[in-house]
Amino acid sequence: MSGGADKRTVYERARLGERVGYGEHPALLVVDLQVGFTAPELSPVAGELGAVIAAANRLLGAARAAGAPAYFTVIAYDPQCPDDAGLWPRKGPYLRTLTVGGDLVRLDPRVERHPSDLLLVKKYASAFFGTHLAALLAARGIDTVMVTGCTTSGCVRATVVDALGYGFRPIVPREAVGDRADEPHEASLFDIDAKYGDVVSLEEALAYLARLRSVGRAAGDAAARGRVGEAAAPTAPGVKRASKS
Amino acid sequence: MSGGADKRTVYERARLGERVGYGEHPALLVVDLQVGFTAPELSPVAGELGAVIAAANRLLGAARAAGAPAYFTVIAYDPQCPDDAGLWPRKGPYLRTLTVGGDLVRLDPRVERHPSDLLLVKKYASAFFGTHLAALLAARGIDTVMVTGCTTSGCVRATVVDALGYGFRPIVPREAVGDRADEPHEASLFDIDAKYGDVVSLEEALAYLARLRSVGRAAGDAAARGRVGEAAAPTAPGVKRASKS
Amino acid sequence: MSGGADKRTVYERARLGERVGYGEHPALLVVDLQVGFTAPELSPVAGELGAVIAAANRLLGAARAAGAPAYFTVIAYDPQCPDDAGLWPRKGPYLRTLTVGGDLVRLDPRVERHPSDLLLVKKYASAFFGTHLAALLAARGIDTVMVTGCTTSGCVRATVVDALGYGFRPIVPREAVGDRADEPHEASLFDIDAKYGDVVSLEEALAYLARLRSVGRAAGDAAARGRVGEAAAPTAPGVKRASKS
Amino acid sequence: MSGGADKRTVYERARLGERVGYGEHPALLVVDLQVGFTAPELSPVAGELGAVIAAANRLLGAARAAGAPAYFTVIAYDPQCPDDAGLWPRKGPYLRTLTVGGDLVRLDPRVERHPSDLLLVKKYASAFFGTHLAALLAARGIDTVMVTGCTTSGCVRATVVDALGYGFRPIVPREAVGDRADEPHEASLFDIDAKYGDVVSLEEALAYLARLRSVGRAAGDAAARGRVGEAAAPTAPGVKRASKS
Repeated sequence: MSGGADKRTVYERARLGERVGYGEHPALLVVDLQVGFTAPELSPVAGELGAVIAAANRLLGAARAAGAPAYFTVIAYDPQCPDDAGLWPRKGPYLRTLTVGGDLVRLDPRVERHPSDLLLVKKYASAFFGTHLAALLAARGIDTVMVTGCTTSGCVRATVVDALGYGFRPIVPREAVGDRADEPHEASLFDIDAKYGDVVSLEEALAYLARLRSVGRAAGDAAARGRVGEAAAPTAPGVKRASKS
Repeated sequence: MSGGADKRTVYERARLGERVGYGEHPALLVVDLQVGFTAPELSPVAGELGAVIAAANRLLGAARAAGAPAYFTVIAYDPQCPDDAGLWPRKGPYLRTLTVGGDLVRLDPRVERHPSDLLLVKKYASAFFGTHLAALLAARGIDTVMVTGCTTSGCVRATVVDALGYGFRPIVPREAVGDRADEPHEASLFDIDAKYGDVVSLEEALAYLARLRSVGRAAGDAAARGRVGEAAAPTAPGVKRASKS
Repeated sequence: MSGGADKRTVYERARLGERVGYGEHPALLVVDLQVGFTAPELSPVAGELGAVIAAANRLLGAARAAGAPAYFTVIAYDPQCPDDAGLWPRKGPYLRTLTVGGDLVRLDPRVERHPSDLLLVKKYASAFFGTHLAALLAARGIDTVMVTGCTTSGCVRATVVDALGYGFRPIVPREAVGDRADEPHEASLFDIDAKYGDVVSLEEALAYLARLRSVGRAAGDAAARGRVGEAAAPTAPGVKRASKS
Repeated sequence: MSGGADKRTVYERARLGERVGYGEHPALLVVDLQVGFTAPELSPVAGELGAVIAAANRLLGAARAAGAPAYFTVIAYDPQCPDDAGLWPRKGPYLRTLTVGGDLVRLDPRVERHPSDLLLVKKYASAFFGTHLAALLAARGIDTVMVTGCTTSGCVRATVVDALGYGFRPIVPREAVGDRADEPHEASLFDIDAKYGDVVSLEEALAYLARLRSVGRAAGDAAARGRVGEAAAPTAPGVKRASKS
């Protein structure tokens, strides 16, 4: 390897850590802010995430104002089907406590989800793995995924890696992600910023959403796409030619 | 089932076959127009696809004029690694003849691919399965996938089903897809139009691409996206703050 | 194409339609036998599937006797989040009636699901698309997927295509799959048998499961895998060295 | 978060870091040991990985003796198609130097690949993302993936996370993975061992492969699977009833 050189020196020489940049159609992703990870008094794998939740809530407000959609995830398994979680509980037996309908899979009550924010149940670390999240985002014309929640070294990081792979710009507001220990949190923020997405301040993320709001170009616009083709569609052959609802 | 009722009657009652419609940022996909499927004198699984190739070439010209990217696929396997094709050759032993570097995996010489059109090597029916095509399309802001090539009942259909799933509007110009027998070709066009994508005439597809050209809103625009956020990005923290190339 | 030659002649010449064959660790998949597709009096997209359900139930009994797991799917969308279904309702507006918690997404009461059979909610045609089904099957050592349910030309076919791609042998017992019209049903059985999986009789499928039972080699065995390595694992370094539960 | 508690204390309390354990049918994965990552004199993102290559070669020998397949990956992009790499080069411009056919995408000449070891070209960090690796492994009956190569905090880690998700037991021999700096290397080994796979010593990994060899239960056996069903398959209906080759 590097013979002990400081990682920042090594990475600068490699020119890692450039900016992926912001797109025009962001979505906000709130990862796993469920009781099992936010209530240390109830779960041994939870952390103190009050400040993370507060930051996520500020971003939720800004996203709504900008017309950007929000998606939530929780991890939950069917308690009657031990193989629902695959091999993962072999590494982390606590996963068996995250049962559908149980207390530990409910969103933390401090999190301000609206009923129209889609809640995805996932089985693995990445919010994209084994879910239809990539489809949802592409269908809606999203180009940027702001990732919040927990844990930084687990589900947030895996989600960021997949978001980039699926073609969406990952943005991680530092104050809006948390972990159960400081060291993995900081190590993963470093790796994410070096290689997969932009780690930014909460203020910068809020300013970006505010700009979108002012120019009225948030993701809501995506709904208006496709009109050129449709307006002019002359003679669509096929089973039925009903006008589109 | 339906007690023998005509499928068109049944499907109209079910209100299947509505229009998915055109988006603003199309890509053209040319599926498996390789010698192994287009040269009956060389391959027992090939069909007479001269007219299909001609139609695909017309669409390629229109797509280039509109600034829309084109992607090509071929099926090819490593002849030294029998498991490269997984279980599929058990159903179709001819797949073993599609070897990397061999004659049957070359594009038909009549197909007008440009060197800058990406050629994807795939292993299964869908152009999305086991490839990074969904990532390519989302990263480029594509919202519509025009599918051409062969075979209608095989790789074209599987590609259309996945395109819809991944969030892209599938458009199938009827003259630009072909099969090795008429019946599966027609049956799959019916199913595609009823449930997964819009089967249109070549003329309609060309007219759509011409409209895009005139309004200058083709996929090339996607390259310009993201400037709002970037222009204003104030203080990106992280490993390195170099200006984006 | 083929200049009008019969598809069977063309396909025999191409040597399509070989056998994928049975493996030793099957799973039974029951696709979309929900009220919305099985109760014509309630849903315009439903078909008369009583015989299909009876066949699926016979296979369920045989699978349980052989120790093979069963997985069920339904299509259901969040009624509060219109984009949960992506672009698909543009083709089939009836999909909007398949709402989480609604009557049309309940399994048909004639279907004999056990509480320990995992029920997957899917959003698209294939049972693998946007779900963790491939992970479930691989983690359990499954090598064969017997596909039942509806519709043959829709979700059954898409599931078969993906099953083969993900490395599982697709087996389709003819009497246990159905569609809303005969023609697409037969056309897809032909295509599936020619290219993606083995279409077999219900009796053959039952006989296969009975053989597995007698030799005690059903998927249940998979649970016993891994003991060689584990028994001898000497000194696992890492965070914790607790013996595996 | 944890108020500064040591991560080992926090993780032990959470009972993270249990053993995923070994299966019976391993595959060896050699990730990205290409010149661009192993020759610091040629590439600013490379590290000194001679010891890692030596360890990987020892594992390759042991895997071959045990009949376990080996798969190799390299990252390579089409230099004529800038969007082949999607958004990733925005974070790491060096990725643009990894061009198909170029020197930096060749395997390091010290790596002992056999021509029959499949070489996968990937576009993103995980060896599973946008490739057919999961299909290859499932089709062959693999249950365990031993991951070697580089970089620990990048492609190795992402591959391990996906391997677990897809249902394969990830095993990481510590001496056979490397990175361009020590700190990310150690941080990712900690996270992997805590949450996704077993980090073991090279000697333990070699001993596991040697045991498999002695009991003759390596992955090669998988080729023999399926005979129960096939031997007895009575009357397979369909297009063609040819005996399986």
